[in-house]
Amino acid sequence: MHSLQFTTETSSDGVLERDFTVGTVPGVLWSPASGAGRAPLVLMGHGGGTHKKAPAMAGRARPLVTECGFHVAVLDAPGHGDRPRTAHDEREIALMQRAMTQGEPVGPIVVRYNAHLAERAVPEYRAALDALQGLPEIGSGGPVGWLGLNMGTAIGVPLTASDPRITAAVFGLHWPDALAEHAKRITVPVEFTLQWDDEHIPRASGLALFDAFASKEKTLHANTGRHKELPRFEFDSAVRFFVRHLGRGATAQA
Amino acid sequence: MHSLQFTTETSSDGVLERDFTVGTVPGVLWSPASGAGRAPLVLMGHGGGTHKKAPAMAGRARPLVTECGFHVAVLDAPGHGDRPRTAHDEREIALMQRAMTQGEPVGPIVVRYNAHLAERAVPEYRAALDALQGLPEIGSGGPVGWLGLNMGTAIGVPLTASDPRITAAVFGLHWPDALAEHAKRITVPVEFTLQWDDEHIPRASGLALFDAFASKEKTLHANTGRHKELPRFEFDSAVRFFVRHLGRGATAQA
Repeated sequence: MHSLQFTTETSSDGVLERDFTVGTVPGVLWSPASGAGRAPLVLMGHGGGTHKKAPAMAGRARPLVTECGFHVAVLDAPGHGDRPRTAHDEREIALMQRAMTQGEPVGPIVVRYNAHLAERAVPEYRAALDALQGLPEIGSGGPVGWLGLNMGTAIGVPLTASDPRITAAVFGLHWPDALAEHAKRITVPVEFTLQWDDEHIPRASGLALFDAFASKEKTLHANTGRHKELPRFEFDSAVRFFVRHLGRGATAQA
Repeated sequence: MHSLQFTTETSSDGVLERDFTVGTVPGVLWSPASGAGRAPLVLMGHGGGTHKKAPAMAGRARPLVTECGFHVAVLDAPGHGDRPRTAHDEREIALMQRAMTQGEPVGPIVVRYNAHLAERAVPEYRAALDALQGLPEIGSGGPVGWLGLNMGTAIGVPLTASDPRITAAVFGLHWPDALAEHAKRITVPVEFTLQWDDEHIPRASGLALFDAFASKEKTLHANTGRHKELPRFEFDSAVRFFVRHLGRGATAQA
């Protein structure tokens, strides 16, 4: 098992931010600045083309830390952030960009490339979870959530299907092709988001992926708008979902 | 225009409850007990076979009053609560009960009977809204919401389509047959709920009704479970929807 090495530490407005590596994989852990006792952990996965500290990640982490008292961790996905791209990464990214530019369907390339990245990222997240649970402020056996849309769903669905430590998950904005078989093995509570007017993911495809989850408790949130127009209030909803299913951290405000 | 006559008044845990009549139609108005200034109004419609003060109505009204500072009003639907049943009501109810008992599809009867009740209830709600807006603590020109599932959707959809004073609405759990044409004329923000495993309303029917709304901002919430298993957290979500779209009342807690 790789141990977790902290590299830098800063603190701002009640949030302690610590960069770390597990093996060669860089990650970030956000925690309550004034922590006391163990608290639940939410793992997040970033979207394609972004990285562990992109504004969407830092922005979603903040209320989970300050309002709920949770720890939140994100890894750079393979080929993203501080990690090198392989020749295969470069080829797939060029194909995606060409499809976008020429107005051709980008779905088949995203599905295939994200599945490839997930094969590399799932064992990395499992190793990071091993290491994070070795920290006294997280510990083993406590509740663990997953929050990831787009590529964060492509990684999170096979991860949640294979790792019983994840006890609640927020997914969305992806195709069923490479994920439905994994989703059929997921039984933990799921909140799933799709865009009703998504120009990339056909409505029936999004509904089919939601339908595939075996979870007794699952909720679909569908909003009007195109792929990138997910309303901000869906993240408030994700926060409440995790409070319902993970409880609250020791330092959480009432 | 019928004026509003208050008949009884009680107060409990911060909620002022006043029974009223508008013409021959009985209703109830729940308001903040320590009101100051005007506040938004939420009209609610109860489900089939229940009445204006059924636990689902009183329970949903309380957080809207105490957490948001809103006024909340419900009318007894025709043939419900304190109102007489016609021979037509009796016949339709008997047909529904027979279908339920014999395990036959109840949808066609509910759709037809609820459409009949809505024709009577819509002008009643419009007259009640006229009268309620004559109260100084509500006034005219302020935001008005609609909250009604099941039969409350059968009444609320044609009401919202025909009355521009309603500026945001929560609907759900109904068939598109008699409602889709009305829904196509609704452009205010809508939150719509359906049950993914509804034994009465086919999934495609619920999705078709959601799709019919012309609203630029609309959100679908679909949960696992049968027709009557709507999760309680959907009402918390409706409260937040109204806070986003109606603002807050003068007396609302922070």
